[in-house]
Amino acid sequence: MLDQIDKLQNQFKEKNLDGLLISNYYNILYLTGFKTLTKDEREAWVLVTINNTYIFSDGRYFQKYQISNIKYQKFRPKVDRPLGEKIKYKLISSEKGLIAYLREIITEEKLRMIGFEGEDLRVNELRRLEQTVPAIKFIPTDKLLLIQREIKDREEIEKIKKACQIGDQCLKEIIPTIRFNQTEKEIAFRIEFWLKEKGLNIAFPPLVAIDQNSAIPHYDTESNGQEKVKKNSLILIDFGVDFQNYLSDMTRVVFFGKPRTEQINVYQKLSKAQRLTMKQCRNINSLKKIDEYCRSRIVNHGLPSYPHSTGHGVGLEIHEYPKISQTSTDVLKPNQVFTIEPGIYFPGKWGMRIEDIIYNKDSQPVVLTKFPKDLII
Amino acid sequence: MLDQIDKLQNQFKEKNLDGLLISNYYNILYLTGFKTLTKDEREAWVLVTINNTYIFSDGRYFQKYQISNIKYQKFRPKVDRPLGEKIKYKLISSEKGLIAYLREIITEEKLRMIGFEGEDLRVNELRRLEQTVPAIKFIPTDKLLLIQREIKDREEIEKIKKACQIGDQCLKEIIPTIRFNQTEKEIAFRIEFWLKEKGLNIAFPPLVAIDQNSAIPHYDTESNGQEKVKKNSLILIDFGVDFQNYLSDMTRVVFFGKPRTEQINVYQKLSKAQRLTMKQCRNINSLKKIDEYCRSRIVNHGLPSYPHSTGHGVGLEIHEYPKISQTSTDVLKPNQVFTIEPGIYFPGKWGMRIEDIIYNKDSQPVVLTKFPKDLII
Repeated sequence: MLDQIDKLQNQFKEKNLDGLLISNYYNILYLTGFKTLTKDEREAWVLVTINNTYIFSDGRYFQKYQISNIKYQKFRPKVDRPLGEKIKYKLISSEKGLIAYLREIITEEKLRMIGFEGEDLRVNELRRLEQTVPAIKFIPTDKLLLIQREIKDREEIEKIKKACQIGDQCLKEIIPTIRFNQTEKEIAFRIEFWLKEKGLNIAFPPLVAIDQNSAIPHYDTESNGQEKVKKNSLILIDFGVDFQNYLSDMTRVVFFGKPRTEQINVYQKLSKAQRLTMKQCRNINSLKKIDEYCRSRIVNHGLPSYPHSTGHGVGLEIHEYPKISQTSTDVLKPNQVFTIEPGIYFPGKWGMRIEDIIYNKDSQPVVLTKFPKDLII
Repeated sequence: MLDQIDKLQNQFKEKNLDGLLISNYYNILYLTGFKTLTKDEREAWVLVTINNTYIFSDGRYFQKYQISNIKYQKFRPKVDRPLGEKIKYKLISSEKGLIAYLREIITEEKLRMIGFEGEDLRVNELRRLEQTVPAIKFIPTDKLLLIQREIKDREEIEKIKKACQIGDQCLKEIIPTIRFNQTEKEIAFRIEFWLKEKGLNIAFPPLVAIDQNSAIPHYDTESNGQEKVKKNSLILIDFGVDFQNYLSDMTRVVFFGKPRTEQINVYQKLSKAQRLTMKQCRNINSLKKIDEYCRSRIVNHGLPSYPHSTGHGVGLEIHEYPKISQTSTDVLKPNQVFTIEPGIYFPGKWGMRIEDIIYNKDSQPVVLTKFPKDLII
């Protein structure tokens, strides 16, 4: 069985590369299982060459690496050789940094053309590399691993499936606890608490938006979240679960009391558009066309289009490839995992969105988020 | 009173810039109060020119912007003109993107030389800008705003102070609840819960490390965290509070039972080194020398040096400028806020770290984290 590193190495010849220098936090996690504490800072680099994989990180991680490496092998029993043999850890210290190691390795392995992640590497980082390692030609690549990550293997699918199942169960238990006068923040907190109590984690801070706030597609519950549940309130809940680094994502609309007739009508149209779009994933290949299809099923009813895309891939990150948007050039492929999430928003009044995760199994779309979508009251 | 935007504009002449294009999430928050949901994706850009400030973001944020802008004015009553007048919001849609707006503005304002954040902008982003807006010369700048952010104004200090006070109170209430057999994850969760219950937030996932895990400086409690409190366990707690986007950071060592004699000896040496280093901040100007001073006070006792820096600035981010490390070129300046956090680690056995936040008020170091450092048992 090919693992993620083999798949990457197989791309080198065609791209005319002797290796790839990887800076992206998630791509490092994907390839090696190595996870640093912060995403924003460069705490690790990975170099994959034809024959070797190197992790460069500092003393804070050396012991942690040993732990996580064992863990990684446990999680990936199908990989036919121990990763400890394949991946070499290079300890960065104040005496010896990335540049010094790169110089050594390029001599040892006779490297000339090293790709870098153009969509991730910083301009000043590239300048420093070019100035200090002039023997190498650094070649920009665009989304090489991001696109490899589009196609999930069985183990990744299993983890996402599990995250979706946990999300279903969470919502099932949380919705009955919603009470009059609870704030958005309190409901979000209960979702987070439910997961963390079980040693699990949220995929992102839960979005809970009541009444007029539900009309703000990217409402920030964490910074605001003071609106309270009132009689007949519309409550939009958009949240996800992190299961062993793989994520789920789901949005549901709940009423605390009775929806108004216009709300029922809009919900039915939204729900139908979303359901039909999921079905269309077996007939339409262009993801831009899937977006068009979904959007038109809402606009044709005289309802407003939504100011966001129809969906996005999900995996280690909450927004991955493929994109299902008005400007997408991506196409449907087997073993992609993505959301379908149209919305209808009336700014200042209220809004609705329904979101599910689709696993495109052998070009048969399977819905992984199973929590019911009847109008929940 | 000069606000953050004025201070930036004042740097343009010297740097020979007509403006600065800002991509960094935290710098956008710092300058405008505008906060997008994710840090990893480019959901907003800011352009500051001599006369204007523009935010470019999409429809998901348009309403949110209006809300956050009002909020921002409330938080910053000292700013003498309403920010709504000063900041122009440009709505990015599938019809009109950043590039189209930039073209308009450079014609309108006759711009030629635009700086960008070389430490933040991606290589491929710069290429796209250079190709599509050839009328502009894009100039790399290095840490312009990151260095401006080193010096905190009164309001920023007040927020950090408040975050530190809340952190003190949190630890005071959490430590007595530590019980036999509790896992690291449970203790971390209780800290998080204590804060979130009050509508507050953590600055980063709390690090709780018991016994041999305390020897791993960047132990990942979230992914591991299964070690339990035993009789005479050493418990290291490193956590921070987010108060209105400004952070605190503190580390303490607690014993569940009795420390061994060698642990008491090591703790006393560590504690003394940390205390004396904080005092030295009024005598030593070079932060590299502060690092040296602290490190040597541990190594001179025949104890091992620590595989991390002695400290780092804190503000909107948990690691900011200045750096207090072996390779730092930063100097001590009034109104910096930073940590002093030496550690002593015995891999496979146990480790200790003590961390406080210092506010360098008129070159008199003031310790903002006040939780006691006597050996807590």
